[in-house]
Amino acid sequence: MTIKRSGVGPRLSQSVSYGDTVYLAGQVADSGDADATVQAKEVLAKIDQLLAEAGSDKSKMLWANVWVSDMSYFADFNKVWDAWVVPGQTPARAAVEAKLARPNLKVEVAVIAARSV
Amino acid sequence: MTIKRSGVGPRLSQSVSYGDTVYLAGQVADSGDADATVQAKEVLAKIDQLLAEAGSDKSKMLWANVWVSDMSYFADFNKVWDAWVVPGQTPARAAVEAKLARPNLKVEVAVIAARSV
Amino acid sequence: MTIKRSGVGPRLSQSVSYGDTVYLAGQVADSGDADATVQAKEVLAKIDQLLAEAGSDKSKMLWANVWVSDMSYFADFNKVWDAWVVPGQTPARAAVEAKLARPNLKVEVAVIAARSV
Repeated sequence: MTIKRSGVGPRLSQSVSYGDTVYLAGQVADSGDADATVQAKEVLAKIDQLLAEAGSDKSKMLWANVWVSDMSYFADFNKVWDAWVVPGQTPARAAVEAKLARPNLKVEVAVIAARSV
Repeated sequence: MTIKRSGVGPRLSQSVSYGDTVYLAGQVADSGDADATVQAKEVLAKIDQLLAEAGSDKSKMLWANVWVSDMSYFADFNKVWDAWVVPGQTPARAAVEAKLARPNLKVEVAVIAARSV
Repeated sequence: MTIKRSGVGPRLSQSVSYGDTVYLAGQVADSGDADATVQAKEVLAKIDQLLAEAGSDKSKMLWANVWVSDMSYFADFNKVWDAWVVPGQTPARAAVEAKLARPNLKVEVAVIAARSV
Protein backbone atom coordinates (compact mmCIF):
# COMPACT_ATOMS: atom_id res chain seq x y z
CA MET A 1 0.00 0.00 0.00
CA THR A 2 1.52 3.31 -1.03
CA ILE A 3 1.89 6.43 1.07
CA LYS A 4 0.80 9.59 -0.78
CA ARG A 5 1.67 12.99 0.60
CA SER A 6 0.65 16.53 -0.33
CA GLY A 7 1.98 19.87 0.84
CA VAL A 8 5.30 18.16 1.54
CA GLY A 9 7.71 20.40 3.43
CA PRO A 10 11.03 19.82 5.15
CA ARG A 11 9.32 19.55 8.55
CA LEU A 12 5.96 17.99 7.81
CA SER A 13 3.47 17.17 5.10
CA GLN A 14 0.06 18.82 5.19
CA SER A 15 -1.59 15.53 4.27
CA VAL A 16 -0.47 11.90 4.28
CA SER A 17 -2.73 9.26 2.74
CA TYR A 18 -2.26 5.57 3.37
CA GLY A 19 -4.71 3.24 1.71
CA ASP A 20 -8.17 4.40 2.60
CA THR A 21 -7.17 6.73 5.43
CA VAL A 22 -5.78 10.25 5.31
CA TYR A 23 -4.01 12.08 8.14
CA LEU A 24 -3.89 15.87 8.09
CA ALA A 25 -1.32 18.03 9.81
CA GLY A 26 -2.62 20.35 12.49
CA GLN A 27 -4.08 23.30 10.59
CA VAL A 28 -3.76 26.88 11.81
CA ALA A 29 -4.76 30.22 10.38
CA ASP A 30 -2.43 32.38 8.31
CA SER A 31 -4.41 35.32 9.62
CA GLY A 32 -2.80 34.90 12.99
CA ASP A 33 -4.06 38.15 14.45
CA ALA A 34 -7.69 37.55 13.54
CA ASP A 35 -10.25 36.59 16.15
CA ALA A 36 -11.18 32.99 16.92
CA THR A 37 -14.16 32.98 14.55
CA VAL A 38 -12.11 34.13 11.58
CA GLN A 39 -9.29 31.74 12.43
CA ALA A 40 -11.73 28.85 12.82
CA LYS A 41 -13.23 29.51 9.39
CA GLU A 42 -9.82 29.66 7.80
CA VAL A 43 -8.69 26.45 9.49
CA LEU A 44 -11.80 24.56 8.40
CA ALA A 45 -11.48 25.88 4.83
CA LYS A 46 -7.92 24.55 4.74
CA ILE A 47 -9.20 21.19 5.96
CA ASP A 48 -11.86 21.15 3.22
CA GLN A 49 -9.16 21.80 0.64
CA LEU A 50 -6.74 19.16 1.96
CA LEU A 51 -9.50 16.56 2.24
CA ALA A 52 -10.61 17.26 -1.34
CA GLU A 53 -7.04 16.82 -2.61
CA ALA A 54 -6.90 13.47 -0.81
CA GLY A 55 -10.16 12.15 -2.25
CA SER A 56 -12.12 12.78 0.92
CA ASP A 57 -14.44 15.39 2.38
CA LYS A 58 -15.71 16.53 5.76
CA SER A 59 -18.53 13.95 5.78
CA LYS A 60 -15.83 11.25 5.94
CA MET A 61 -13.93 12.59 8.94
CA LEU A 62 -13.27 9.84 11.47
CA TRP A 63 -11.46 11.72 14.20
CA ALA A 64 -10.59 15.34 14.94
CA ASN A 65 -8.32 16.85 17.56
CA VAL A 66 -9.08 20.48 18.37
CA TRP A 67 -6.80 22.75 20.36
CA VAL A 68 -7.78 26.25 21.42
CA SER A 69 -5.12 28.44 22.98
CA ASP A 70 -7.64 29.64 25.55
CA MET A 71 -10.94 28.02 26.48
CA SER A 72 -12.55 31.46 26.17
CA TYR A 73 -12.36 30.90 22.39
CA PHE A 74 -14.12 27.56 22.58
CA ALA A 75 -17.71 28.78 22.14
CA ASP A 76 -16.76 30.82 19.08
CA PHE A 77 -14.88 27.89 17.60
CA ASN A 78 -17.77 25.54 18.20
CA LYS A 79 -20.23 27.89 16.52
CA VAL A 80 -18.16 27.80 13.34
CA TRP A 81 -17.54 24.06 13.66
CA ASP A 82 -21.21 23.21 14.23
CA ALA A 83 -22.21 25.12 11.09
CA TRP A 84 -19.48 23.38 9.08
CA VAL A 85 -19.87 19.69 9.92
CA VAL A 86 -22.35 17.53 8.03
CA PRO A 87 -25.40 16.65 10.17
CA GLY A 88 -25.47 12.93 10.91
CA GLN A 89 -21.87 12.50 9.79
CA THR A 90 -19.91 14.15 12.57
CA PRO A 91 -16.50 12.75 13.56
CA ALA A 92 -15.28 11.57 16.92
CA ARG A 93 -13.59 14.62 18.43
CA ALA A 94 -11.46 15.66 21.39
CA ALA A 95 -10.90 19.31 22.25
CA VAL A 96 -8.51 20.68 24.85
CA GLU A 97 -6.68 23.91 25.61
CA ALA A 98 -3.04 24.24 24.59
CA LYS A 99 -0.66 27.04 23.73
CA LEU A 100 0.07 26.88 20.01
CA ALA A 101 3.22 27.43 17.99
CA ARG A 102 2.75 31.20 17.71
CA PRO A 103 1.21 33.39 20.43
CA ASN A 104 -1.46 34.87 18.15
CA LEU A 105 -2.82 31.51 17.04
CA LYS A 106 -6.11 30.71 18.71
CA VAL A 107 -7.19 27.45 17.06
CA GLU A 108 -5.56 24.32 15.63
CA VAL A 109 -7.35 21.30 14.20
CA ALA A 110 -5.95 17.95 13.06
CA VAL A 111 -8.08 15.35 11.31
CA ILE A 112 -8.05 11.68 10.34
CA ALA A 113 -10.52 10.88 7.55
CA ALA A 114 -11.62 8.06 5.28
CA ARG A 115 -10.84 8.46 1.58
CA SER A 116 -11.73 6.75 -1.67
CA VAL A 117 -8.97 4.57 -3.06
CA MET B 1 -15.79 0.34 3.42
CA THR B 2 -18.61 1.92 5.38
CA ILE B 3 -18.35 4.43 8.19
CA LYS B 4 -20.55 3.56 11.18
CA ARG B 5 -21.20 6.08 13.91
CA SER B 6 -22.84 5.91 17.30
CA GLY B 7 -23.83 8.66 19.70
CA VAL B 8 -24.16 10.97 16.72
CA GLY B 9 -24.64 14.59 17.75
CA PRO B 10 -24.60 17.89 15.88
CA ARG B 11 -21.00 18.53 17.00
CA LEU B 12 -19.40 15.11 17.17
CA SER B 13 -20.09 11.41 17.27
CA GLN B 14 -19.09 9.46 20.35
CA SER B 15 -17.75 6.63 18.18
CA VAL B 16 -16.84 6.31 14.52
CA SER B 17 -15.99 2.88 13.11
CA TYR B 18 -14.26 2.45 9.79
CA GLY B 19 -13.52 -1.10 8.73
CA ASP B 20 -11.66 -2.79 11.53
CA THR B 21 -10.81 0.38 13.46
CA VAL B 22 -12.92 2.46 15.81
CA TYR B 23 -12.21 6.02 16.93
CA LEU B 24 -13.81 7.29 20.15
CA ALA B 25 -14.46 10.90 21.00
CA GLY B 26 -12.66 12.26 24.03
CA GLN B 27 -14.66 10.99 27.01
CA VAL B 28 -15.23 13.08 30.10
CA ALA B 29 -17.21 12.57 33.27
CA ASP B 30 -20.78 13.76 33.70
CA SER B 31 -20.01 14.01 37.40
CA GLY B 32 -17.89 17.07 36.75
CA ASP B 33 -17.43 18.00 40.39
CA ALA B 34 -16.24 14.57 41.49
CA ASP B 35 -12.60 13.90 42.26
CA ALA B 36 -10.14 12.53 39.73
CA THR B 37 -10.64 8.93 40.82
CA VAL B 38 -14.39 9.05 40.38
CA GLN B 39 -14.08 10.89 37.07
CA ALA B 40 -11.50 8.39 35.82
CA LYS B 41 -13.79 5.47 36.63
CA GLU B 42 -16.70 7.12 34.88
CA VAL B 43 -14.62 7.93 31.80
CA LEU B 44 -13.30 4.38 31.51
CA ALA B 45 -16.80 2.93 31.99
CA LYS B 46 -18.00 5.09 29.09
CA ILE B 47 -15.12 3.79 26.98
CA ASP B 48 -16.06 0.19 27.86
CA GLN B 49 -19.60 0.89 26.74
CA LEU B 50 -18.63 2.61 23.48
CA LEU B 51 -16.12 -0.11 22.60
CA ALA B 52 -18.73 -2.82 23.23
CA GLU B 53 -21.21 -1.05 20.94
CA ALA B 54 -18.53 -0.96 18.23
CA GLY B 55 -17.64 -4.65 18.46
CA SER B 56 -14.48 -4.02 20.42
CA ASP B 57 -13.27 -4.05 24.02
CA LYS B 58 -10.43 -2.65 26.11
CA SER B 59 -8.10 -5.55 25.25
CA LYS B 60 -8.17 -4.32 21.64
CA MET B 61 -7.19 -0.71 22.30
CA LEU B 62 -4.40 0.40 19.98
CA TRP B 63 -3.80 3.96 21.12
CA ALA B 64 -5.04 6.18 23.92
CA ASN B 65 -4.61 9.88 24.51
CA VAL B 66 -5.04 10.96 28.11
CA TRP B 67 -5.40 14.55 29.26
CA VAL B 68 -5.50 15.56 32.91
CA SER B 69 -6.34 19.15 33.74
CA ASP B 70 -3.59 19.19 36.37
CA MET B 71 -0.70 16.76 36.70
CA SER B 72 -1.55 16.49 40.40
CA TYR B 73 -4.41 14.22 39.27
CA PHE B 74 -2.14 11.95 37.27
CA ALA B 75 -1.31 9.42 40.00
CA ASP B 76 -4.99 8.98 40.87
CA PHE B 77 -5.87 8.58 37.22
CA ASN B 78 -3.13 6.02 36.68
CA LYS B 79 -4.25 3.96 39.65
CA VAL B 80 -7.71 3.60 38.10
CA TRP B 81 -6.26 3.06 34.62
CA ASP B 82 -3.77 0.39 35.75
CA ALA B 83 -6.56 -1.59 37.44
CA TRP B 84 -8.73 -1.30 34.32
CA VAL B 85 -6.44 -2.27 31.45
CA VAL B 86 -5.97 -5.92 30.52
CA PRO B 87 -2.52 -7.20 31.55
CA GLY B 88 -0.42 -8.00 28.48
CA GLN B 89 -2.82 -6.13 26.20
CA THR B 90 -2.15 -2.51 27.08
CA PRO B 91 -2.40 0.15 24.36
CA ALA B 92 0.18 2.67 23.24
CA ARG B 93 -0.60 5.79 25.26
CA ALA B 94 0.35 9.44 25.56
CA ALA B 95 -0.65 11.53 28.55
CA VAL B 96 -0.24 15.27 28.96
CA GLU B 97 -1.75 18.11 30.96
CA ALA B 98 -4.37 20.31 29.35
CA LYS B 99 -7.26 22.44 30.48
CA LEU B 100 -10.48 20.76 29.45
CA ALA B 101 -13.77 22.09 28.11
CA ARG B 102 -15.26 22.76 31.54
CA PRO B 103 -13.26 23.92 34.56
CA ASN B 104 -14.39 21.08 36.82
CA LEU B 105 -13.34 18.33 34.40
CA LYS B 106 -10.17 16.61 35.55
CA VAL B 107 -9.69 13.82 33.02
CA GLU B 108 -10.35 13.20 29.34
CA VAL B 109 -9.47 10.06 27.38
CA ALA B 110 -9.71 9.36 23.65
CA VAL B 111 -9.10 5.91 22.18
CA ILE B 112 -8.44 4.19 18.88
CA ALA B 113 -9.19 0.46 18.96
CA ALA B 114 -9.40 -2.59 16.76
CA ARG B 115 -12.83 -4.06 16.19
CA SER B 116 -14.34 -7.19 14.68
CA VAL B 117 -15.89 -6.65 11.26
CA MET C 1 -5.94 -9.25 11.89
CA THR C 2 -3.66 -9.69 14.88
CA ILE C 3 -2.53 -7.03 17.31
CA LYS C 4 1.20 -7.18 18.04
CA ARG C 5 2.68 -5.26 20.94
CA SER C 6 6.21 -4.53 22.08
CA GLY C 7 7.48 -2.97 25.27
CA VAL C 8 4.36 -4.23 26.99
CA GLY C 9 3.98 -2.82 30.49
CA PRO C 10 1.18 -2.85 33.04
CA ARG C 11 0.15 0.67 32.01
CA LEU C 12 0.90 0.87 28.32
CA SER C 13 2.74 -0.76 25.47
CA GLN C 14 5.50 1.19 23.75
CA SER C 15 4.27 0.00 20.36
CA VAL C 16 1.06 -1.59 19.11
CA SER C 17 0.89 -2.88 15.54
CA TYR C 18 -2.38 -3.69 13.84
CA GLY C 19 -2.17 -4.88 10.28
CA ASP C 20 -0.13 -2.40 8.32
CA THR C 21 -0.25 0.38 10.91
CA VAL C 22 1.79 0.86 14.07
CA TYR C 23 0.96 3.18 16.96
CA LEU C 24 3.74 4.30 19.29
CA ALA C 25 3.31 5.46 22.86
CA GLY C 26 4.35 9.04 23.57
CA GLN C 27 8.12 8.90 23.88
CA VAL C 28 10.02 10.96 26.41
CA ALA C 29 13.68 11.19 27.39
CA ASP C 30 15.19 9.18 30.21
CA SER C 31 17.67 12.00 30.57
CA GLY C 32 14.98 14.15 32.09
CA ASP C 33 17.27 16.93 33.22
CA ALA C 34 18.94 17.38 29.84
CA ASP C 35 18.15 20.35 27.61
CA ALA C 36 15.53 20.23 24.87
CA THR C 37 18.06 19.36 22.16
CA VAL C 38 19.40 16.35 24.03
CA GLN C 39 15.89 15.23 24.98
CA ALA C 40 14.70 15.59 21.38
CA LYS C 41 17.55 13.45 20.09
CA GLU C 42 16.85 10.78 22.67
CA VAL C 43 13.13 10.77 21.91
CA LEU C 44 13.69 10.44 18.17
CA ALA C 45 16.26 7.67 18.69
CA LYS C 46 13.67 5.76 20.70
CA ILE C 47 11.18 6.23 17.89
CA ASP C 48 13.72 4.90 15.36
CA GLN C 49 14.18 1.84 17.53
CA LEU C 50 10.47 1.19 18.07
CA LEU C 51 9.68 1.67 14.39
CA ALA C 52 12.45 -0.76 13.40
CA GLU C 53 11.09 -3.38 15.79
CA ALA C 54 7.65 -2.96 14.19
CA GLY C 55 8.89 -3.34 10.61
CA SER C 56 8.71 0.37 9.90
CA ASP C 57 11.03 3.37 9.80
CA LYS C 58 10.82 7.16 9.94
CA SER C 59 10.19 7.46 6.19
CA LYS C 60 6.87 5.67 6.75
CA MET C 61 5.54 7.94 9.49
CA LEU C 62 1.96 8.99 8.78
CA TRP C 63 1.20 11.25 11.71
CA ALA C 64 3.12 12.68 14.62
CA ASN C 65 1.94 14.53 17.70
CA VAL C 66 4.57 16.68 19.36
CA TRP C 67 4.24 18.22 22.80
CA VAL C 68 6.78 20.64 24.24
CA SER C 69 6.43 21.62 27.87
CA ASP C 70 7.24 25.22 26.95
CA MET C 71 7.12 26.81 23.50
CA SER C 72 10.56 28.26 24.22
CA TYR C 73 11.90 24.75 23.48
CA PHE C 74 10.13 24.55 20.14
CA ALA C 75 12.91 25.96 17.95
CA ASP C 76 15.47 23.60 19.48
CA PHE C 77 13.14 20.67 19.02
CA ASN C 78 12.44 21.56 15.42
CA LYS C 79 16.14 21.83 14.60
CA VAL C 80 16.66 18.25 15.74
CA TRP C 81 13.44 17.08 14.08
CA ASP C 82 14.21 18.75 10.74
CA ALA C 83 17.63 17.04 10.61
CA TRP C 84 16.04 13.69 11.47
CA VAL C 85 13.07 13.40 9.11
CA VAL C 86 13.54 12.03 5.59
CA PRO C 87 13.25 14.81 2.96
CA GLY C 88 10.16 14.29 0.81
CA GLN C 89 8.73 11.77 3.26
CA THR C 90 7.71 13.91 6.19
CA PRO C 91 4.61 12.98 8.21
CA ALA C 92 1.54 15.04 8.96
CA ARG C 93 2.29 16.64 12.33
CA ALA C 94 0.64 18.69 15.06
CA ALA C 95 2.67 20.37 17.78
CA VAL C 96 1.33 22.11 20.87
CA GLU C 97 2.51 23.08 24.34
CA ALA C 98 1.57 20.87 27.29
CA LYS C 99 2.96 20.08 30.69
CA LEU C 100 4.29 16.54 30.64
CA ALA C 101 4.24 13.74 33.19
CA ARG C 102 7.39 14.86 34.98
CA PRO C 103 8.41 18.50 35.45
CA ASN C 104 11.84 18.07 33.88
CA LEU C 105 10.51 16.57 30.65
CA LYS C 106 10.63 19.06 27.79
CA VAL C 107 9.51 17.02 24.79
CA GLU C 108 7.12 14.16 24.05
CA VAL C 109 6.40 12.67 20.63
CA ALA C 110 3.82 10.06 19.59
CA VAL C 111 3.73 8.57 16.11
CA ILE C 112 1.47 6.54 13.83
CA ALA C 113 3.36 4.86 10.99
CA ALA C 114 2.89 2.42 8.14
CA ARG C 115 4.62 -0.93 8.45
CA SER C 116 5.34 -3.93 6.28
CA VAL C 117 3.13 -6.93 7.01
